[in-house]
Amino acid sequence: MLGLGAMGQAIAGAFLEAGHPVTIWNRSQGKGEQLVERGATRAATAADAVRAADLVVVCLLDQAASRAVLAPIAADVRGRVLVDLTSDTPQRAREAAAWARDEGIEYLDGAMMANVPMVGTPEALVFHSGSRAAYEKYAATLRVLGGRTTYLGENHALAAAYDLAVLDYFWTSMSGLVHAFAFAQAEGIKATDIVPYLVGNGGLLAAIAPGMAEDAERRSYPGDADNLVMDTAGVEHVLHAAEQHGLDVSALRGIKGVADRAIAKGHGGDSWTATIEAVRTAATATATAATTAPGTPA
Amino acid sequence: MLGLGAMGQAIAGAFLEAGHPVTIWNRSQGKGEQLVERGATRAATAADAVRAADLVVVCLLDQAASRAVLAPIAADVRGRVLVDLTSDTPQRAREAAAWARDEGIEYLDGAMMANVPMVGTPEALVFHSGSRAAYEKYAATLRVLGGRTTYLGENHALAAAYDLAVLDYFWTSMSGLVHAFAFAQAEGIKATDIVPYLVGNGGLLAAIAPGMAEDAERRSYPGDADNLVMDTAGVEHVLHAAEQHGLDVSALRGIKGVADRAIAKGHGGDSWTATIEAVRTAATATATAATTAPGTPA
Ligand SMILES: NC(=O)c1ccc[n+]([C@@H]2O[C@H](COP(=O)([O-])OP(=O)(O)OC[C@H]3O[C@@H](n4cnc5c(N)ncnc54)[C@H](OP(=O)(O)O)[C@@H]3O)[C@@H](O)[C@H]2O)c1
Ligand SMILES: NC(=O)c1ccc[n+]([C@@H]2O[C@H](COP(=O)([O-])OP(=O)(O)OC[C@H]3O[C@@H](n4cnc5c(N)ncnc54)[C@H](OP(=O)(O)O)[C@@H]3O)[C@@H](O)[C@H]2O)c1
Repeated sequence: MLGLGAMGQAIAGAFLEAGHPVTIWNRSQGKGEQLVERGATRAATAADAVRAADLVVVCLLDQAASRAVLAPIAADVRGRVLVDLTSDTPQRAREAAAWARDEGIEYLDGAMMANVPMVGTPEALVFHSGSRAAYEKYAATLRVLGGRTTYLGENHALAAAYDLAVLDYFWTSMSGLVHAFAFAQAEGIKATDIVPYLVGNGGLLAAIAPGMAEDAERRSYPGDADNLVMDTAGVEHVLHAAEQHGLDVSALRGIKGVADRAIAKGHGGDSWTATIEAVRTAATATATAATTAPGTPA
Repeated sequence: MLGLGAMGQAIAGAFLEAGHPVTIWNRSQGKGEQLVERGATRAATAADAVRAADLVVVCLLDQAASRAVLAPIAADVRGRVLVDLTSDTPQRAREAAAWARDEGIEYLDGAMMANVPMVGTPEALVFHSGSRAAYEKYAATLRVLGGRTTYLGENHALAAAYDLAVLDYFWTSMSGLVHAFAFAQAEGIKATDIVPYLVGNGGLLAAIAPGMAEDAERRSYPGDADNLVMDTAGVEHVLHAAEQHGLDVSALRGIKGVADRAIAKGHGGDSWTATIEAVRTAATATATAATTAPGTPA
């Protein structure tokens, strides 16, 4: 196990818990003492750690860190299976796959979609893509990290693409959650008093999300239950009141800007999902998005 | 019932369903025919509608619309209970309360926190604040609109304040959801294929939100499980990849800007919740937020 940040430690801990022998290494000293107490072997160098096992699991800050650690020891990794659970972009996953291919290393990419306390639980989601042989060989071992371990296909970039789509939603929601706390506090309401209502509303979102996804695929956004003009009035109310409290409203302004552009494109009577047409606007200017965007143009 | 938009019709429908006689009115013609078929009486004018009942329920686009409809018929509303379920800012709820007081009208403010299909179900959340006497008199009738009907207190602005805090989170999340669909599609993944993973992650958010709210109240953000430098690297990956697909990234850029400012304030080793210190930054510049922000300054 290369990398003993919060996630690397959680991963190594889950392997130990399942009875797998684990050799650990981290760039800087002093991390992972509890793992040693629980039976992990500490290696002096990354090369030593790699040579101690057939399965090399990596979890570092980003692919630049992975490259910095792995490039000098490529010869030691060769002949082993490399699973990199570091989160980064699809493009960098492709680059990592090309590097591994050139080095003759069997490579499976991965993305941890759980937070640290959830690692190793049945609910934890982990995406994998890349070498199918590597995944099949170690599926049982990898499943230790999360009950919702999912292999997406041979294309190494898939795990990162799914990862970033989920992170897109996740960090935007996390930002909305923290902003709502700040807004409530500015109104004299405790964050702890508003949180049950925010989370309750998250259930509403889960209920409507599948229908929204269907509309996004069909590129048809019937405004029977809500319409963008009314929705945007709500966003404007939040923006206005938050601004009056002196809160940062840069994200909300971006959101309202997208909604306003969708209205200007004629979607005022459509549902919120129609904002996707404004999110995509600039997209039609680039070849990548133009070739992959489904359906008829707006 | 004044106002037969999507929400006004759902409200009138729930009252009818519960066996209450309902008189309906809408500014423009042709809306609510099914309500008449289900037993509602259509009034020719707003004044006629008001005079037909003791309880006057309003649901229009915003408080400006409410004022436009109610101001000319204040004398008819007097002696009745006015419940305005129109969504707007706390400031405008205060103005509406002042208007009602000057006109001698007993006024309860309200906010529908359900979408149209959920109205009248046990899960539907409705906030009320203002006249306690009015709420107590009509509590059973109002509860018809949602099982989670909640009276927040005498301060007329409370329902709107809770409403906007919930909308802040809700619209930001909805924007993240649609953006994630667009991102997935740009990566060649169907929105319908990614949605189960987005919604699953929403469960993660619900699990961590209460602890985040406690940290926000304590203004202490221990970075045991995640840290802002790592989190922001994730946001940057999404931003970078989305930008390369030509997608609109204005909201993500606002989110990353807030996180970067929190890191600059020394919160790089803290959890994501520490971004609240950057959301509040501008807040300390204004009197309103400075007097209501709890705890010690950053
Ligand atoms: N924590 C979570 O909740 C979570 C959830 C899902 C996914 N992830 C992903 O998991 C990965 C690791 O996250 P984490 O929470 O463990 O982060 P972290 O606690 O910040 O740890 C970062 C790790 O990367 C190492 N590192 C950074 N730059 C390096 C370099 N140039 N050379 C060698 N090592 C380097 C660090 O080593 P030092 O100790 O020497 O600095 C440390 O081991 C990230 O890609 C993250 O996106 C995390
Ligand atoms: N739909 C939802 O999912 C939802 C959820 C929660 C809260 N809400 C809130 O419920 C309220 C109504 O939403 P909705 O979905 O019913 O909106 P809507 O379908 O757009 O209907 C708007 C209503 O306001 C009326 N109106 C607008 N300006 C007016 C004016 N100047 N004078 C008189 N009437 C005017 C419209 O009359 P015309 O028919 O003559 O245009 C129509 O009855 C909003 O405050 C909204 O934020 C809605």
